[in-house]
Amino acid sequence: MICAMNTSARVYLDYAAATPLLPAAFMAMKPYLEGDFGNPSAIHAEGAIARQAVEKAREEIALAVQVRPEYVTFTGGGTEGNNLGIFGVIESARKAGKNYQDIEVITTKIEHPSIGVAMNRLEELGVVVRYVDVDETGKVSLEHLKELLSTRTVLVSVAYANSEIGTIQPLHALKKALTQAENTHDTQIMLLVDGAQAPLWLSCLSSTVGADILVLDFAKCNGPKGVGAIIRSRRVNLSAIVHGGGQESGLRPGTENVPGIVGASVAFVEAQKHYKERAQTTSTVRDEGMQILLETVSGLVINGPVGGERLANNINVSIPELDTEFAAVVLDSKGFAVSTKSACAGAGGGASIVVRETTHDPARATSTLRFSLSPQTTVTDILNLAQVLKAYVEQMKNL
Amino acid sequence: MICAMNTSARVYLDYAAATPLLPAAFMAMKPYLEGDFGNPSAIHAEGAIARQAVEKAREEIALAVQVRPEYVTFTGGGTEGNNLGIFGVIESARKAGKNYQDIEVITTKIEHPSIGVAMNRLEELGVVVRYVDVDETGKVSLEHLKELLSTRTVLVSVAYANSEIGTIQPLHALKKALTQAENTHDTQIMLLVDGAQAPLWLSCLSSTVGADILVLDFAKCNGPKGVGAIIRSRRVNLSAIVHGGGQESGLRPGTENVPGIVGASVAFVEAQKHYKERAQTTSTVRDEGMQILLETVSGLVINGPVGGERLANNINVSIPELDTEFAAVVLDSKGFAVSTKSACAGAGGGASIVVRETTHDPARATSTLRFSLSPQTTVTDILNLAQVLKAYVEQMKNL
Repeated sequence: MICAMNTSARVYLDYAAATPLLPAAFMAMKPYLEGDFGNPSAIHAEGAIARQAVEKAREEIALAVQVRPEYVTFTGGGTEGNNLGIFGVIESARKAGKNYQDIEVITTKIEHPSIGVAMNRLEELGVVVRYVDVDETGKVSLEHLKELLSTRTVLVSVAYANSEIGTIQPLHALKKALTQAENTHDTQIMLLVDGAQAPLWLSCLSSTVGADILVLDFAKCNGPKGVGAIIRSRRVNLSAIVHGGGQESGLRPGTENVPGIVGASVAFVEAQKHYKERAQTTSTVRDEGMQILLETVSGLVINGPVGGERLANNINVSIPELDTEFAAVVLDSKGFAVSTKSACAGAGGGASIVVRETTHDPARATSTLRFSLSPQTTVTDILNLAQVLKAYVEQMKNL
Repeated sequence: MICAMNTSARVYLDYAAATPLLPAAFMAMKPYLEGDFGNPSAIHAEGAIARQAVEKAREEIALAVQVRPEYVTFTGGGTEGNNLGIFGVIESARKAGKNYQDIEVITTKIEHPSIGVAMNRLEELGVVVRYVDVDETGKVSLEHLKELLSTRTVLVSVAYANSEIGTIQPLHALKKALTQAENTHDTQIMLLVDGAQAPLWLSCLSSTVGADILVLDFAKCNGPKGVGAIIRSRRVNLSAIVHGGGQESGLRPGTENVPGIVGASVAFVEAQKHYKERAQTTSTVRDEGMQILLETVSGLVINGPVGGERLANNINVSIPELDTEFAAVVLDSKGFAVSTKSACAGAGGGASIVVRETTHDPARATSTLRFSLSPQTTVTDILNLAQVLKAYVEQMKNL
């Protein structure tokens, strides 16, 4: 069994699914877990301390992405944020007098389930959901997008970077197409960008992203679980999807998760401060790693784009005819934490919708492995992984 | 200024708005904040550790309330839970073929905003919301309830204990009326009980509560902020209000807040284990405290019920003609954290809807003060509070 296991340290290659909490974020949370427990809506000193903590966190995130603090709304995570963005825009359009049947939304067939399943729900309600083509690397077809944009389009939803195959969408070109359509039709088209995978590796500056709604999940960038945010543009109108008190400008009622929000801001600011160096280092490991995997494991193919169009920490492969779900279990037993697809898409069985929709190759879609690197992942880690995987593939072939 | 301020320790009397995190809960959370950060949906060892933590927490809460673990669904808090309960039942009825216009819901006009505002939204959708009368103590009129129950009633929503004036609803009698109506009309009527204020002071045993949906917010019972649960009966059908991955049996998609859920279970189990002794001790302080306030502060009246019909830690008073918002600020400066009404109803200005609806006395509704006691609150604390309040009231009268 080669040299892979002469260390007991585990190699965690599922950074797209969960990241460790940044110690500095935990330190910042501690006072609010151990002592300052006030309700931010309360009138007294304990409440004021909590309110100041929440507003300071909001200001720091706002500063990091260059928006006004009031455009940052804290949520309970990325799934809730994507839902708030989608239904928030659609219900707001309804309040302005539009029927579901007169509303068109454009998205892709390779989005995260929190977009994909929400779109299914929109269709149930009567909204027309149009799916823009993506190429074999997952990139949105701008030509097809331009064809789909109509006077009825109110929302376009794409991920900043695909969570399974790492495709970074050309947001600038996309936004340009939307603006053109807005000018032609004298309409407004909201751009929702699911940025869950972005903060550690890509700029989230509002001017870079160009989104009307940028959705974040801080658990994906070394923040605590259960905290997300949506960052809005000035022009977007949203309706709340949960109803109650007036917290978060009425957009997200319920007592604010003060320690979570504080930790989230520390993690996010740190993620963005060094994203470029982090992406540079890790994409080098990624590229060497992909080369090693291709050379080592017979039959292995890479899914998704190459180079700068790929998220810095994403490797996604198929090994056609291999039961990769079982391979993931074997790799786990050998010390490598990997996934077959996105955790929210069900970590276990079934084909990868993303790989099916991009490759149109069922054998590839049912034999995926995703290795999402941490900033600490080394080329040696991938070398060891490749050796273990090679041995496993050969063993399976000999059976 | 009497003897009240010869100590620098603050007297926190806003336990209904926020409670400190139980140290044992924090200790239980720590491993998942410092090390075990896996995604519970992931296939590998890190994922399995997280999954086990979530399921252990679910089992412990289920055991404490005597339901099967699958009937415990974790949410992002009480507001989300109330919304999931309400819209979950209504959308499920819709999927079964009912139109909004053919659905009737019964609630009171003294519910928490996360019920009240959700009901307004139901009315916008066309659902018929009927408001059952409450008496001057906030108790639901069973006679009126029986009149309102019809073949179209699908949901009845009441709080276990009112968050402002502490009214404990007669859930057994209420449930009996519902069962009678179900038998008469051959229908099913779901009972949603907003239990946010309950766990520290009342039994949450499923057989005691009798709810089809019991909504909990663990931040109200020494658990972490941003975590709640709904506890379902076997018969209830719910639709999700947020769409995405299959987490929480599809009812609440999104990566589970592992540390939060772990802390919540520890806090909830501890809250329930000793609720009876805690309620006994604190209700004695409450009753002596109410007597002291009545005797000390001229013009002061008590809102809500007395004795066993009142939540053990709730005191709510009106001092007609007093600006109690300003009084709360003054009390804060003297070391007493109090509120005028519920934090979610806006800690600051405006009348208390609860006191307006129960007393029909605008002067009382605009001059409320809520003192929600902690288990550590002493009679001396209330004595000191009463002295400071008395001095303030006299000062205001002399102006």
